[in-house]
Amino acid sequence: MVDKTAEAEYRIEHDTMGEVRVPIAALYGAQTQRAVENFPISGSVLEPAQIAALARIKKSAAIANAKLGVLDAEIAQAIAEAADLVATGRYDSEFPIDVYQTGSGTSSNMNMNEVLATLATRSLGRTVHPNDHVNASQSSNDVFPTSVHLAVTSALIDDLIPALDHLAFALEAKAELWAGAVKAGRTHLMDATPVTLGQEFGGYARQMRLGIERVRTALPRVAEVPLGGTAVGTGINTPFGFPQLVIELLVEETELPVTEARDHFEAQANRDGLVDASGALRTIAVSLTKICNDLRWMGSGPNTGFGELNIPDLQPGSSIMPGKVNPVIPEAVLMVCSRVIGNDATIAWSGASGSFELNVAIPVMGTALLESIRLLSNATRVLADKTVDGLTANVERARALAESSPAIVTPLNRVIGYEAAAKVAKHSVAEGVTVRESVIALGFVERGEVTLELLDTALDVLSMTRPPQPR
Amino acid sequence: MVDKTAEAEYRIEHDTMGEVRVPIAALYGAQTQRAVENFPISGSVLEPAQIAALARIKKSAAIANAKLGVLDAEIAQAIAEAADLVATGRYDSEFPIDVYQTGSGTSSNMNMNEVLATLATRSLGRTVHPNDHVNASQSSNDVFPTSVHLAVTSALIDDLIPALDHLAFALEAKAELWAGAVKAGRTHLMDATPVTLGQEFGGYARQMRLGIERVRTALPRVAEVPLGGTAVGTGINTPFGFPQLVIELLVEETELPVTEARDHFEAQANRDGLVDASGALRTIAVSLTKICNDLRWMGSGPNTGFGELNIPDLQPGSSIMPGKVNPVIPEAVLMVCSRVIGNDATIAWSGASGSFELNVAIPVMGTALLESIRLLSNATRVLADKTVDGLTANVERARALAESSPAIVTPLNRVIGYEAAAKVAKHSVAEGVTVRESVIALGFVERGEVTLELLDTALDVLSMTRPPQPR
Amino acid sequence: MVDKTAEAEYRIEHDTMGEVRVPIAALYGAQTQRAVENFPISGSVLEPAQIAALARIKKSAAIANAKLGVLDAEIAQAIAEAADLVATGRYDSEFPIDVYQTGSGTSSNMNMNEVLATLATRSLGRTVHPNDHVNASQSSNDVFPTSVHLAVTSALIDDLIPALDHLAFALEAKAELWAGAVKAGRTHLMDATPVTLGQEFGGYARQMRLGIERVRTALPRVAEVPLGGTAVGTGINTPFGFPQLVIELLVEETELPVTEARDHFEAQANRDGLVDASGALRTIAVSLTKICNDLRWMGSGPNTGFGELNIPDLQPGSSIMPGKVNPVIPEAVLMVCSRVIGNDATIAWSGASGSFELNVAIPVMGTALLESIRLLSNATRVLADKTVDGLTANVERARALAESSPAIVTPLNRVIGYEAAAKVAKHSVAEGVTVRESVIALGFVERGEVTLELLDTALDVLSMTRPPQPR
Amino acid sequence: MVDKTAEAEYRIEHDTMGEVRVPIAALYGAQTQRAVENFPISGSVLEPAQIAALARIKKSAAIANAKLGVLDAEIAQAIAEAADLVATGRYDSEFPIDVYQTGSGTSSNMNMNEVLATLATRSLGRTVHPNDHVNASQSSNDVFPTSVHLAVTSALIDDLIPALDHLAFALEAKAELWAGAVKAGRTHLMDATPVTLGQEFGGYARQMRLGIERVRTALPRVAEVPLGGTAVGTGINTPFGFPQLVIELLVEETELPVTEARDHFEAQANRDGLVDASGALRTIAVSLTKICNDLRWMGSGPNTGFGELNIPDLQPGSSIMPGKVNPVIPEAVLMVCSRVIGNDATIAWSGASGSFELNVAIPVMGTALLESIRLLSNATRVLADKTVDGLTANVERARALAESSPAIVTPLNRVIGYEAAAKVAKHSVAEGVTVRESVIALGFVERGEVTLELLDTALDVLSMTRPPQPR
Repeated sequence: MVDKTAEAEYRIEHDTMGEVRVPIAALYGAQTQRAVENFPISGSVLEPAQIAALARIKKSAAIANAKLGVLDAEIAQAIAEAADLVATGRYDSEFPIDVYQTGSGTSSNMNMNEVLATLATRSLGRTVHPNDHVNASQSSNDVFPTSVHLAVTSALIDDLIPALDHLAFALEAKAELWAGAVKAGRTHLMDATPVTLGQEFGGYARQMRLGIERVRTALPRVAEVPLGGTAVGTGINTPFGFPQLVIELLVEETELPVTEARDHFEAQANRDGLVDASGALRTIAVSLTKICNDLRWMGSGPNTGFGELNIPDLQPGSSIMPGKVNPVIPEAVLMVCSRVIGNDATIAWSGASGSFELNVAIPVMGTALLESIRLLSNATRVLADKTVDGLTANVERARALAESSPAIVTPLNRVIGYEAAAKVAKHSVAEGVTVRESVIALGFVERGEVTLELLDTALDVLSMTRPPQPR
Repeated sequence: MVDKTAEAEYRIEHDTMGEVRVPIAALYGAQTQRAVENFPISGSVLEPAQIAALARIKKSAAIANAKLGVLDAEIAQAIAEAADLVATGRYDSEFPIDVYQTGSGTSSNMNMNEVLATLATRSLGRTVHPNDHVNASQSSNDVFPTSVHLAVTSALIDDLIPALDHLAFALEAKAELWAGAVKAGRTHLMDATPVTLGQEFGGYARQMRLGIERVRTALPRVAEVPLGGTAVGTGINTPFGFPQLVIELLVEETELPVTEARDHFEAQANRDGLVDASGALRTIAVSLTKICNDLRWMGSGPNTGFGELNIPDLQPGSSIMPGKVNPVIPEAVLMVCSRVIGNDATIAWSGASGSFELNVAIPVMGTALLESIRLLSNATRVLADKTVDGLTANVERARALAESSPAIVTPLNRVIGYEAAAKVAKHSVAEGVTVRESVIALGFVERGEVTLELLDTALDVLSMTRPPQPR
Repeated sequence: MVDKTAEAEYRIEHDTMGEVRVPIAALYGAQTQRAVENFPISGSVLEPAQIAALARIKKSAAIANAKLGVLDAEIAQAIAEAADLVATGRYDSEFPIDVYQTGSGTSSNMNMNEVLATLATRSLGRTVHPNDHVNASQSSNDVFPTSVHLAVTSALIDDLIPALDHLAFALEAKAELWAGAVKAGRTHLMDATPVTLGQEFGGYARQMRLGIERVRTALPRVAEVPLGGTAVGTGINTPFGFPQLVIELLVEETELPVTEARDHFEAQANRDGLVDASGALRTIAVSLTKICNDLRWMGSGPNTGFGELNIPDLQPGSSIMPGKVNPVIPEAVLMVCSRVIGNDATIAWSGASGSFELNVAIPVMGTALLESIRLLSNATRVLADKTVDGLTANVERARALAESSPAIVTPLNRVIGYEAAAKVAKHSVAEGVTVRESVIALGFVERGEVTLELLDTALDVLSMTRPPQPR
Repeated sequence: MVDKTAEAEYRIEHDTMGEVRVPIAALYGAQTQRAVENFPISGSVLEPAQIAALARIKKSAAIANAKLGVLDAEIAQAIAEAADLVATGRYDSEFPIDVYQTGSGTSSNMNMNEVLATLATRSLGRTVHPNDHVNASQSSNDVFPTSVHLAVTSALIDDLIPALDHLAFALEAKAELWAGAVKAGRTHLMDATPVTLGQEFGGYARQMRLGIERVRTALPRVAEVPLGGTAVGTGINTPFGFPQLVIELLVEETELPVTEARDHFEAQANRDGLVDASGALRTIAVSLTKICNDLRWMGSGPNTGFGELNIPDLQPGSSIMPGKVNPVIPEAVLMVCSRVIGNDATIAWSGASGSFELNVAIPVMGTALLESIRLLSNATRVLADKTVDGLTANVERARALAESSPAIVTPLNRVIGYEAAAKVAKHSVAEGVTVRESVIALGFVERGEVTLELLDTALDVLSMTRPPQPR
């Protein structure tokens, strides 16, 4: 948010409240300038994806207005062409208003109206009015939240789901590669019966696949948009058939599965669909937290930790400890998760703050949600490409640890009972001998309670990781 | 959590760690007693719904074990009958262990194993062992989380969805009743174009219907249970076919749509499905917050507030201000929402804390989630029955407010343009006259820009609430 | 919340809204009964500590009223004596109203007024009125929040601070015991330069000491109470001098450092002091989370984990894996932390929901905050007594791990430079040799860059844990 | 985060991992470039305030190193001068690394080391090494968190406290101005006994003053810094006396009350002080939420709302409803509060994630906390200057509402009792007459229970807002 109104380099614009000095080269007008001056708060502007979505809505609205006789066809065409240009991102610097603005996003809607009016006026050679033409049949109250939902729908479908799929594939590749790499299971962080590295990675992959499912099931309610409701959901000042037509055009324009709100009063007064979608992202962040922590612990060491995995070396890890290599990508992803969880709190808090016909915390909700999607999309791709793909396993060490676990006594429950097996496990740990040695030392073989052959079968760690077989 | 071990009224039990004094009449044994002593923390125990779910799992497991030849049929039958008794809630006081216990719920699983073993031993006349018999083919690590998912699935389907449906119906009845009751719209809390009370209540109803949809889409992933994975997801110590059979029996027993986890390693190590479901509840809490706040504001007064609705008088409102009546049910519901949001934070935090093959914060997750469902189910029923059903509207006052709103100038945008209409609105407020009077006073009729007939049509508040009609 | 109105066992009471059936033996009256019926939501009632605090406020108010001539001295005395009885907890079952009630707590205030009026009437032999006598010079709006602040102040001073101090002492004892027990430092979970176990435990103790400081600095603002403000902060219907006198008496009665609100309008309309105090608890929960996780990881194993600490065996750890022992207390404490963090979210959410002269989410705020204090107090005591006190260290293993860390090359930075030292560390890991062997193998001694004597001094792990000494 | 490595415009740098292409004009070197490539995640970099703080630490360290004989005086001087330049912000574009990087901030610490080494090398004419010279006696693990604490301390003292003070002053001015402007009190949103606008604004001011107190009490623990602990808190590779000297120099350089950590192991492994400080900001956000909501409701209307206050008109409020003016600044501030609350969740979540000697979520914690301080500082200034200062009151309307409230019957409790007064209030509302008329109509005057003179005295609304007077 740069103040462009340096001395003498302005022009005078007016709106319903009077005159305003606007930077001489700005495409925007009085209302944008007022907002720039009113909100010197964060220095951050709306996400470019939302600006593009807003432009596309304006285009669809202009065409719909022309088809329904509300707008002159040439004016509509000029607005549509201007909107195409803005949607490319080329004019992003013409949208300087702070995120922390009026809660309806009216300032940003008017910013778009003004920029498109200026561009359309220039190309057409006659005046296109920001409110009467560009904003025709619309209100900030339906258009602005629609732009958030549209941008979110697009980002979920085009960015997040493919990124999660990409990470799931990378994890599945490792699951296959390490299907037979036995390692110690750990429950309560304590030695448990063995699993394979492949099983663990299969579980991580499934978490990501479930994450995709979570996003997919949230989508229909995010893709339901209030467009057509104008000021309060009644559709005041729209021509007959406008909501249906504008959304049909918007679908055509964006190829996204947006739909008209089933109930315009629900859709306009509430942003529950965003809260819901953020909840899905939050669950994905929870999943990723578990995955990244497991990776970090398996890669801990090289000498004082678990040392089961080698995490790729990407950069020197310490400014003081020479030769140190750290799991930097999982750490970055964990911080992303923490941010997503914070954004989720912001979104829920804001989502609950609406009154009557409008929620007035839309800009921060949209910005936080789009940021969360962007962060998760980028972070999961980076995690796949820079960490998961390059992981290598210390298969021998992992197997040795598995075999050292006193929990491998578990299959003997069926043979000697839980309580006797507990004695074996405790003996093994106390004496520092293997479970096999303990069984023998405690006389179970001697007493004929178990044969050596059965013992060896029972204690095979890899077979403990396999589903039970038909007898 | 009552300490039952008063002087001399105990018996001696033992487990793999040695001897323990257990209250003489207790059905539980050594491990339960140890846990009672180890966790004197909150004084709160698991939700009864989870105890019942756990009993049903034990029953299904006993039958499955018998069918697969792992358990003697008589023992299995005795366990199943004991489980039936426990599932009725009759023995709830035999489950005294604190929520804040071992994170796997092992203590509560052993509590169930011990109680069922005692009951089965008594009825059968020979020893049934808690681990070797009752817990056969199971581990706390698959059984305990399954009991949470089962109880949650049941509570969502049998309690929450019907309660939300009940509230939605109550709201829909009011939406129909007040379809023609025009009132001022409010955006940014400021006067906006009119809506009907019916439209607002229709929006609230739709929020509840969407809430039901949110729960329904979360259900399949909550109903996927880890049962059959035993210690670490590998199914160690289960007979071939056990997971499929036990879940089939559990479905039969509970008539709930539970399914076997697609990936037992995901399902056992993570509780993401609970985080997800809690997110759905959180969104419902956000919706209810908006609804209850709107109700409170519309009912504010009687003389210094909006006074559009009368909220039923349920109890004297003040210990000092005589005759005061307050919106006590909406306030109670708002506090429920606040608790649900806090529980959601607990669930997400705990959900992210797992390591390797197990999450060890399951008891608090289950308790918080079941509490949230219970609170929302009860609160939405109370809201429907004690507030929404009894609401009455001050229709005349609401209409008068609607007509006083300067925003009713909006339809004139199409006739005289946005900027001229803004002048009318400002004149109206500044001079304290109606919009109609302002239009005339500012010469629009005189100048022929608008006829009186068109003016009257344009300013009809009820027609402003209707969707645009074909011309 | 038990419904005591079984068939025919009731009496008829009346209040300003008419007649109500009240259980025949109940000490409470009409308004309590209405509230019992109005709020069948959670089944949970207020924390006993708040009931006791409320009784003490009533006692102080009665005496103050008598001294200021508002109440007959005998009536005041009877109320005071009744309040003394109630404060013992003996009549807790006479307070059956749900937490989720009217947000001002009016129902619970009237419950207290009614119970005290009944008891006082009985002892005095003439009618004591709940509103006109017991509630004289008071309103729920000042009395109920004061009861929360009073109970919280008491619980912080009498329960939490001593419990934190107790845990800090336990940690400090271990810090001293293990002052010379060298172990591997870990940063990013990767091998770092050594520390001592004592240094780590000293850090944990300091976290708890800082937690005490956090509670202490929050106390003055929690102990500022709105008592005396009555309905809206103006003190309407109080005699001159009442706030000062009643608080003076309350201090005398409770020996707690409560003070009169500096600004009664702030104090009555907002519960910011509770939000603030909860924030302090939240930070303590964050500290405990770190401590418990470290303990769990240091105790991980026995064979596949770090195995640096032995966590006391309190109970069998697994229903399937015999002999397993888990860190059950740290897990319970972690769940407590998660609950405290959820309660904190509830408290902040509710704290922000006030309007004008009143916050109407006080019962849930008070309940959540008192629960958090209780949980933290009990959990930290249990952690000290059942885990920290009984910890033993595997000193030899810890030292061996420390010596195996490639990071012990760090002191050589000053001798051979960071880049050369990095080569040594990498050589050591790649070849599986010690750092000392690598230095020699890479020719640093041969080339005279370092002497063997200096090398041995530099690589002494214990000396690396000591603060630098004067040269 | 711009990728500067366009075709052929790079130079080759090396570090301990090998060669890297670095943009030819960049002041930074190999490790910065690796990090730029490793973390293409958010596109956001560290807050400039933290970069400046980091530079100042480097300066102090260089001077301390020289004084203690670890660094050549000329090199130290060159580093200090380079740091002075960087601290001005002039080279901010040389710090292109993403926030989501390694969790220790090592990448950003090395970025600073490299930039200062380049600048110092240029000015000095001989090689200054990033690790061996600039980073001497330091580690990312002590330096990077210290830079966060230093920047936070500075921002709290220099930005937030003055901004809160500024807002408190603005509110106090209104409190004084409106000391006699009586208005209806509202509790539960329902009509209550009167207050003055001045009393309400006095309460808001007090909330801000308490906010300042909250920040002040958190400061000492934020200002305690880990500097001097190097890699793991032991101070390895520092000369004797370094921590004390470097912090003394830092205090001199910054004039901030930073102190050496009492326990370096606590200070280095945990970021509890940041969690604590964020909790204070969170409470301030809760306070501001209440204030902004009150302002919005008092300003609601102009015709269908409360209309007690006029919020300054800053910009047209609607793109469709002409002449609409909205409370845009309070809305923006509410969104800021929502963000601060989300940031607080991120900070607590990250704060709990540390292990052993290091928390690895410092960059996101620092960024979120510095953002929160910046947002709150700017938002409270804007609120004071653009809203509070310009507020005007509709004094007559406010008084008329106050007089219409049935709750003004309250003073009659003392005269006719609570129950009789309740009858009066209900009669007044039901019949639509004043309280005075009801008292007469119900015969209280006729029956001699109250005189007309006493009635008029009792019903004077302004006197109801005054503290009770001595009789």
